[in-house]
Amino acid sequence: MNNFHCPFPYTATDFVQLSHGGSGRIAQRLLDAVFRPILGNPLLDLKHDSAILAIPGGRIAITTDAFVVHPWRFPGGNIGSLAVHGTVNDLAMSGARPVAISLAFVIEEGFAISALAEIAQSIRESVDRASVYVGAADTKVVERGKGDGIYISAAGVGEVVAVNPILPTSVTEGDAILLSGDVGRHGAAVMTVRDGLEVDPPIESDSAAVHEPVLAMLEAGIDIHCLRDVTRGGLATVLNEIATDGSAPIRIDEDKIPVREDVTAVCEILGLDPLYVACEGRFVAFVPADQAERALEVMRQFDVAKGAVRIGIAEGTKGRVEMKGRIGVLRILDLLSGEQLPRIC
Amino acid sequence: MNNFHCPFPYTATDFVQLSHGGSGRIAQRLLDAVFRPILGNPLLDLKHDSAILAIPGGRIAITTDAFVVHPWRFPGGNIGSLAVHGTVNDLAMSGARPVAISLAFVIEEGFAISALAEIAQSIRESVDRASVYVGAADTKVVERGKGDGIYISAAGVGEVVAVNPILPTSVTEGDAILLSGDVGRHGAAVMTVRDGLEVDPPIESDSAAVHEPVLAMLEAGIDIHCLRDVTRGGLATVLNEIATDGSAPIRIDEDKIPVREDVTAVCEILGLDPLYVACEGRFVAFVPADQAERALEVMRQFDVAKGAVRIGIAEGTKGRVEMKGRIGVLRILDLLSGEQLPRIC
Repeated sequence: MNNFHCPFPYTATDFVQLSHGGSGRIAQRLLDAVFRPILGNPLLDLKHDSAILAIPGGRIAITTDAFVVHPWRFPGGNIGSLAVHGTVNDLAMSGARPVAISLAFVIEEGFAISALAEIAQSIRESVDRASVYVGAADTKVVERGKGDGIYISAAGVGEVVAVNPILPTSVTEGDAILLSGDVGRHGAAVMTVRDGLEVDPPIESDSAAVHEPVLAMLEAGIDIHCLRDVTRGGLATVLNEIATDGSAPIRIDEDKIPVREDVTAVCEILGLDPLYVACEGRFVAFVPADQAERALEVMRQFDVAKGAVRIGIAEGTKGRVEMKGRIGVLRILDLLSGEQLPRIC
Repeated sequence: MNNFHCPFPYTATDFVQLSHGGSGRIAQRLLDAVFRPILGNPLLDLKHDSAILAIPGGRIAITTDAFVVHPWRFPGGNIGSLAVHGTVNDLAMSGARPVAISLAFVIEEGFAISALAEIAQSIRESVDRASVYVGAADTKVVERGKGDGIYISAAGVGEVVAVNPILPTSVTEGDAILLSGDVGRHGAAVMTVRDGLEVDPPIESDSAAVHEPVLAMLEAGIDIHCLRDVTRGGLATVLNEIATDGSAPIRIDEDKIPVREDVTAVCEILGLDPLYVACEGRFVAFVPADQAERALEVMRQFDVAKGAVRIGIAEGTKGRVEMKGRIGVLRILDLLSGEQLPRIC
């Protein structure tokens, strides 16, 4: 995305001003030059206070996340694509088909308009690929020093297609625990650029929308008990959340968890445990053991989940995550006290 | 709200840390101490990635806004109640019954936890009064100096109850233009505290949810053609937006527009035109002239619109807002070039 060309009458030397966040002509100019041509669609073009859409099923899922990743651009994506993928994935994790997202931008005065256009373009590509609409958007500008370039808050609306509730409390003893691919790549990608580590080739974020394998599993009749995308806090944290919220017993095999060598190397340099490092295009699925093989087959039909593996089983102590280490000893995989990696998403 | 008491194990000397925005135990403590007890409801308590709700009609409205008001507390409200009202009102302006909102918080390291609790409490009261759910929430913490206390992005989902499209393009020549009450109070309230003006008694923001008079008009069979809440840029700006987007002719009477004396006085001191100052609890409605009196009657049944008046008619030059001044001369009411009041919402 570094060779992005700005297709409108601003140049790289133009920067966001406070008045771009207001309601006057200057704000209109920014909207007309950047957001409308790049993000426009029949819903947004109405320029009204809200967009109206039809959801036949009548059961909808809603979600929200604020994105404050620093730096805003990293190998494999930027804050714009990240916001789309994170929102689409949260909806998918509830067994919902993503339909529309809304985006609220808080931009620091002085942010480059060419960067804004690069982000908008990346949003456009991500929503098109995920077949969702940008149904609503808002822009606010804050004074220099009162922000950090750009923050994006996204909310999403989806149509629930899963019949049974996909929740931690639905996890059943004996469930197979599946993981859609290698872990830790998003966090490693962001940290290498943030810390200026030279990694050749660069580690690319795994940031991607994962709704397709999820919806395909549902269509194939897999009785998914629980889903969770492996974001903040990494695999260890999300498994702990499921164990706590669902009083579920979770036991995984360290051997089975795919971590790329370059990710392991970067984590060693930075003193991080890859099991606590965020992904943005990976998820765990709890399914009945006798459906696990079929579920893996379905997942692997999609690029984003072609590395799907079975990593464990719902057994052991309720509410606890245990991991069988490489030499066969069981240990408890706990929550960290504080935050390993701030502003990773 | 200044005498707010924090009902949990934090004191006013406790401040938000970076780790409160993460995924570890410290973040859990903040969520458990502030957000869950105050904002909790059956949807949010599931602690899942998204909330699921039933919308029978199948037609939904979605909207989003980022709130960056400075200072975060002002007479008549704070950034929390403002976020709820703004979102509820955007939905109402599409003829939708507000159902659920989502909230994404970007909090600066060092923000007082007691202030966070005050804001959460204010959100709780506002959503309860408007009968909407907080369906999803997210918290991110950014380093000191990379934010300004707190920013909140809200998104909303509503069930569309209007049968005909409520849009600028639906405005019809001859429509009566109604305004739900006096203008400029929100902007004046925020500016007096921001600039340290001593006004006694203080000017209170008009921030409020206005969905009730709107839904009541629809129930009463009023054929509403267009609605717009009078926010950023004030009455003059939103009328210009409608004129431009709907190619509508708009003519209003300066005499008919209610502005309180204290608001006029503060605007004179600050060099502002009250017609360009934001409200957060006022709206304009375009309705067929023969339904105008009935519409005003319905609106005035609600406290929030008891000052509703007819301010003009859809006639004159298409795409232009004209105002008959106090001495009877018509002048064009244009968009401002830049922003009169940054960070007013």
